[in-house]
Amino acid sequence: MFKTEQQRVGLGLWKVSKDDCADAVYNAIKIGYRHLDSACDYGNEKEVGQGIARAIDDGLVTREDLWITSKLWNTYHAPEHVQPALERTLNDLGLEYLDLYLIHFPIAQAFVPFETRYPPEWFHDPLAADPKMEFAQVPLHQTWQAMEALVDLGSVKHIGVCNYNSALLFDLVNYARIKPSMLQVEIHPYHTQQRLLTLANNLGIPVTAFSPLGAQSYVEIDMATQAQAVITREEVLNAAKAHDVTPAQVVLRWGVQRGYAVIPKSTNPKHLAENLDLFNFSLTEIEMEAISGLNLNHRFNDPGHFCGEAFNTHCPIYD
Amino acid sequence: MFKTEQQRVGLGLWKVSKDDCADAVYNAIKIGYRHLDSACDYGNEKEVGQGIARAIDDGLVTREDLWITSKLWNTYHAPEHVQPALERTLNDLGLEYLDLYLIHFPIAQAFVPFETRYPPEWFHDPLAADPKMEFAQVPLHQTWQAMEALVDLGSVKHIGVCNYNSALLFDLVNYARIKPSMLQVEIHPYHTQQRLLTLANNLGIPVTAFSPLGAQSYVEIDMATQAQAVITREEVLNAAKAHDVTPAQVVLRWGVQRGYAVIPKSTNPKHLAENLDLFNFSLTEIEMEAISGLNLNHRFNDPGHFCGEAFNTHCPIYD
Repeated sequence: MFKTEQQRVGLGLWKVSKDDCADAVYNAIKIGYRHLDSACDYGNEKEVGQGIARAIDDGLVTREDLWITSKLWNTYHAPEHVQPALERTLNDLGLEYLDLYLIHFPIAQAFVPFETRYPPEWFHDPLAADPKMEFAQVPLHQTWQAMEALVDLGSVKHIGVCNYNSALLFDLVNYARIKPSMLQVEIHPYHTQQRLLTLANNLGIPVTAFSPLGAQSYVEIDMATQAQAVITREEVLNAAKAHDVTPAQVVLRWGVQRGYAVIPKSTNPKHLAENLDLFNFSLTEIEMEAISGLNLNHRFNDPGHFCGEAFNTHCPIYD
Repeated sequence: MFKTEQQRVGLGLWKVSKDDCADAVYNAIKIGYRHLDSACDYGNEKEVGQGIARAIDDGLVTREDLWITSKLWNTYHAPEHVQPALERTLNDLGLEYLDLYLIHFPIAQAFVPFETRYPPEWFHDPLAADPKMEFAQVPLHQTWQAMEALVDLGSVKHIGVCNYNSALLFDLVNYARIKPSMLQVEIHPYHTQQRLLTLANNLGIPVTAFSPLGAQSYVEIDMATQAQAVITREEVLNAAKAHDVTPAQVVLRWGVQRGYAVIPKSTNPKHLAENLDLFNFSLTEIEMEAISGLNLNHRFNDPGHFCGEAFNTHCPIYD
């Protein structure tokens, strides 16, 4: 589906601050990134758009060279909100179309108007005395129909989903008129997701791994400790030494070599370059298996866990 | 929802052989069971019906005293097959109506006509050289609509689902015109399902635990070993001693006391009586917590595991 092999490494834009974001995007494109993974909920799409615009204005790339993904937030699942949500995202990004638009979570939350708060995030009213999530009664098949209409319009080239499990995926392919072009889920050596990957493969759905380095994505927001890092494990260090690459490159290459795209986040120029440089070495079967053997079925990004704590609302989706 | 507290213990009919079944049902009713958990797929509904008929004929109970559940098999998910499937079940059971009809799995398999094979089980063609499951393109919301029509007709009093996870449950309540009256899932001390239970409770959906004794249900079919039995654990034995009951009674009482129904299977008259006798003792908070603390998130009944091995087809629903 991607236009080049290089696009199998994207720049993840979650948690990139507004201040850093335009430069991070510009610099990433400058060193060769052609895939940007954005979302309404990341709160930085205007700045992503500024980075893209500067790169195009400077002649580094054309729009067609880039693969740009964004995501429909939970508060816009009602069919009548899907197109306005996309338009807001396109407007912020300064684009005519997206390459890929994903349903961000299989959770329908109550609508929050743009003028009230954008992005609305998880709480219905963050200023309430006891803020909570508020659910909306919108079935996923209705949201998917509205996503399909965006493809018909030409505003998005492909549509897909994030954070769907196997049962939701079976159901989705059964009601989809336009099949999902992407499943984006958490995958790293502590959560290898082999069964889900095999299912997606059987169903012909490409996969993108978010948090491909595992705990690294969560330490800064106190959802993991450095002790949970996979890049310090012997299996990873041995492979890094053998191939004269960094541990992070080993973990990312392990992902790419399993057949899916990875979207590591970085604003550090050295890391940005390293994360992209995954196509000049191959891990051996033995190295691949050793890293896959680290699996603990450990999910860092689980609303059933973090919503109950951070968002004061019981919202499991994987249990 | 149940008519009496006693109905919170049902007789599970999975793996009860045709030869034993009519007697098992009759004897269970005789000693006080008023809740029978049947399914097309168990292949013994005619014999269940014989047992019920004999009990009613002998004046042990009336139809209205009983709570009878059955389940729609995977091959009948297409809307046009739902009512015929129910009628076959009613005919076999010799009943005018069911108290509860459940979608057995969130998996739509290709239709198999009654005259070809009944029940059709998991393989599309078990006599093929390389038998496999065959999926059908039927979304769950269409099957649910057909289930709702059965309530409208009066052929079933309540409808619900089995083996749904949290995300499927959120989606179901969002598209349901008639809300689910029951979630039936695997629950035992090695798979306490606390998050799913809390969600079902928040959504107002009662729960029934199948395999409430854990490994006991799976040893005879080689899906568990006796070493995985929870009834030999110290926490269970201590409580059994303290209350002068059997370890199985402790584990079942732990379930009932958590607020859901349990449907242990037995054809042994002594066990049948013990399993029903759960309302003359209460476990202490400390005992409850000790048993809940045994949780391993271990699922014995997982198509993602057993289908790949036993049914030669990759069919995860919980991953």
